[in-house]
Amino acid sequence: MEHITSPDLTNYITRSLSKIKHKRFESYVVSRIIHTLNDFEIKFVTQQYVRLSNGKIALTDIFFPQLELHIEIDEGHHFEKKETQYLESSNDLSENLPKYIIVNQDKMREEDIISITNHNILRVNVFKDENGEQQSLASINEQIEKLVEFIQNSKQELLANNLFTPWNIITEFSPQTYIEQGSIKLNQNILFKKSMDACNCFGHSYRGFQKGGAKHINEPDTLIWFPTLFSNDQWENSISPDGNTIIEKSLDLNVMKIKVDEWNNGLKKRIVFAKVKHPLYRENMYRFLGLYQLQDTATIENGGIWKRISTEVKTYPPKNK
Amino acid sequence: MEHITSPDLTNYITRSLSKIKHKRFESYVVSRIIHTLNDFEIKFVTQQYVRLSNGKIALTDIFFPQLELHIEIDEGHHFEKKETQYLESSNDLSENLPKYIIVNQDKMREEDIISITNHNILRVNVFKDENGEQQSLASINEQIEKLVEFIQNSKQELLANNLFTPWNIITEFSPQTYIEQGSIKLNQNILFKKSMDACNCFGHSYRGFQKGGAKHINEPDTLIWFPTLFSNDQWENSISPDGNTIIEKSLDLNVMKIKVDEWNNGLKKRIVFAKVKHPLYRENMYRFLGLYQLQDTATIENGGIWKRISTEVKTYPPKNK
Repeated sequence: MEHITSPDLTNYITRSLSKIKHKRFESYVVSRIIHTLNDFEIKFVTQQYVRLSNGKIALTDIFFPQLELHIEIDEGHHFEKKETQYLESSNDLSENLPKYIIVNQDKMREEDIISITNHNILRVNVFKDENGEQQSLASINEQIEKLVEFIQNSKQELLANNLFTPWNIITEFSPQTYIEQGSIKLNQNILFKKSMDACNCFGHSYRGFQKGGAKHINEPDTLIWFPTLFSNDQWENSISPDGNTIIEKSLDLNVMKIKVDEWNNGLKKRIVFAKVKHPLYRENMYRFLGLYQLQDTATIENGGIWKRISTEVKTYPPKNK
Repeated sequence: MEHITSPDLTNYITRSLSKIKHKRFESYVVSRIIHTLNDFEIKFVTQQYVRLSNGKIALTDIFFPQLELHIEIDEGHHFEKKETQYLESSNDLSENLPKYIIVNQDKMREEDIISITNHNILRVNVFKDENGEQQSLASINEQIEKLVEFIQNSKQELLANNLFTPWNIITEFSPQTYIEQGSIKLNQNILFKKSMDACNCFGHSYRGFQKGGAKHINEPDTLIWFPTLFSNDQWENSISPDGNTIIEKSLDLNVMKIKVDEWNNGLKKRIVFAKVKHPLYRENMYRFLGLYQLQDTATIENGGIWKRISTEVKTYPPKNK
């Protein structure tokens, strides 16, 4: 079955667009962008949680993973920014995002939050900056037209440089796709439905898998790791805003004593797939974050500090076949 | 101010599209039709109540008044029709509408319900008829593409015959528009915000008006009438499905005695503007229905029976000027 005729695509698109129920301008702009663009080779995510460089969490209205591009719809009254740049890019969203989209961190524990260092942001201004007056439909539509053109050009540019992989909702969750590709990359925005699918990119042939980690079959110094990157009653793991540092800590001193020992004497490299809730389906999924290495010596005070050493890792076919 | 830059248009369009909150397929199809069509000279109404020929009331998903065209989105499970015709027209919707869109009449009392004799209906099929299987996005999009083409062709055809008046949200509520036009017509789908605006199309220069009717200045045998066409605690007025007959009846026998006398000895013609709630703004508005004439002699038993004798009436500039 093809991507464009797959029920999964129908489901994904209609759910993504109807997610924005209560904000009529956001709903208008998002649906107009998607319908005008009319290119289902370009993946989009509505209401993507992002980590700002100041550590806060925000929500962008549309995220185009292949283009590393976010669209923000600036709505009326909440408007607090000093200046807005249209069709200009910024690589530090925290400077640039309106305050109202910054979300309450406590509620975000299980969410799929991505790091956006080097991502771009474009805006659609629904209200005029100076006086809070509503933009006309003509002006909103004109902004959307330019934006869609920008998106089309970005795709063409990536295509010309052989850097564009068309969205395929059928193959995107399959280990086979990434085995054939020879590697997985952070900017491919990879989510797996099951932790075994992640394992099976690295020589395994699991048909079921439940643990928090698996040894890499071909690279014996490496663990495939499925951490939760938020605090719960046993762990207080965290990730830095740029995604480069993961700190692993248990709240239980006895567990920590054992873990510190394990970290200092165990596998020093980890391919990380963070456990997150899928924003649409509310099921657990596993987001690829890169290859990390233990930094210095782990201590009870500092925990295990894992530094990202690569955003791309090699994939392997099943060893037994 | 122009139509396309008017805040009223922004407001109307965004509200119309966000009205459809809970049905993700309907929301997808409606927004895709409107954004793909991308022609704001063509007015549309989402979720229009219509009177079926069997007297029941139904809801169509999009109504294009200038084209006298309705779009129905056939959604999954509720599917009960025996056959569906795509891009074919029907002038009796009651035969053709899925059962689930027929609405509870009790709740509809104050709504703006239109008669649809001779209107056309087109369908977008979101689920396959035979087996209830979901249509693919490719197939849904293809149906929408054809439909948008049909709408564009319909507009062109009307234009070629000088029968198309571009939608103008600024002038559509102004008496001046219709005075300049020389008449008002049923198929123009005219709603006035105030009853005085209706009066002022017929020689009056009211700046405020509250009564249930006003004498026509230029045609002394005619009343401009603002009835409610549903039952309340004093009246049990009704209109036939085709809109050609209005029956006026009071529930109070004493009132009826006076009224019957009034009807039989009073003005025999009435230009009718029914009092309705605007579907988006929930304000009272006045819908033009045509010119009606008292049929036979009114009696206490039958009430006043008013038959439509014309769907077009002449307009007049203010007498005093």
